Amino acid sequence: MPRKPEILKLTPTTESRLFQVEAMDLRFSNGAERRFERLVTRGHGAVMVVALDDADNLQLIREYAAGLDRYVLTLPKGLIDAGETPLEAANRELQEEIGFGARTLEPLRQLCSAPNYMGHTIDVILARDLYPSRLEGDEPEPLELVTWPLARIDELAMNEEFSEGRAIAALYLARQRLASR
Amino acid sequence: MPRKPEILKLTPTTESRLFQVEAMDLRFSNGAERRFERLVTRGHGAVMVVALDDADNLQLIREYAAGLDRYVLTLPKGLIDAGETPLEAANRELQEEIGFGARTLEPLRQLCSAPNYMGHTIDVILARDLYPSRLEGDEPEPLELVTWPLARIDELAMNEEFSEGRAIAALYLARQRLASR
Repeated sequence: MPRKPEILKLTPTTESRLFQVEAMDLRFSNGAERRFERLVTRGHGAVMVVALDDADNLQLIREYAAGLDRYVLTLPKGLIDAGETPLEAANRELQEEIGFGARTLEPLRQLCSAPNYMGHTIDVILARDLYPSRLEGDEPEPLELVTWPLARIDELAMNEEFSEGRAIAALYLARQRLASR
Repeated sequence: MPRKPEILKLTPTTESRLFQVEAMDLRFSNGAERRFERLVTRGHGAVMVVALDDADNLQLIREYAAGLDRYVLTLPKGLIDAGETPLEAANRELQEEIGFGARTLEPLRQLCSAPNYMGHTIDVILARDLYPSRLEGDEPEPLELVTWPLARIDELAMNEEFSEGRAIAALYLARQRLASR
């Protein structure tokens, strides 16, 4: 393992409501110096939930994604609130986004998004033994619920509407965990 | 498919060297109005390369990721330059990052990262028929090359060092493409 670069200086650059940016002055172990920029990671992390009903159907949502300015098909997900565990956040998001709670929740793994310029991570949670339960969320409009057979994830992973790298990774991590039993 | 929200106004908020932020005032089809923020997507996109040698070993890199402030194991990747196709960018990045070119390059699919607040996309490319060829890149230090058998991707997908969602998705997309032949 190489010796980590030394952080010579961290300089806050810009800050908007959601995004705080900092410059990092680095000296690599070979002496090379570089200035990088990254988004500052705030908050308590996020969760993404692979929820399976008793017939092994994935519970997907169709929601408006502002970054792409279009509707996308993805997995239920959201930020972890202060004081919540990732499993609690997963169960709350499920109730807000798809109208089900889960009696069985287990962590699969933590994923990062774009580690070269942001430290944001998301905990992928497998949820089963679903029961109807709705909590009020902060969505501007109700999300559309779409079910998809777990047996057909190879097709979902190539679906134009389902293009989020972390969500595709989450599907395969869930399948692998279930197959290992 | 729901009717897309109307964009009432886009307002630039902050701009650093790498990150430009804009506020989006939206009116959803049910009348709900919200202000979102997103990163503005600039440039020509990016590529991520699943490169396989003739013995079906994946070519991975270990590089410093500033967002996480640690070394990570990941796939070769980089920005597409002006005037380049994604396949050309993939072949250039391979030569810069691992010291190999590829005689066979094929697109697998385009992935997004965090579509709720950024429009950034990455084209995943499968590269085979490798040959030694090195191009000078802009890396501050040489990247470590790590090979990993394609047959063991389930293990790689759970490796602590290999945590990028898009890279895990890319592995399974490549395996699926190769298995379908």
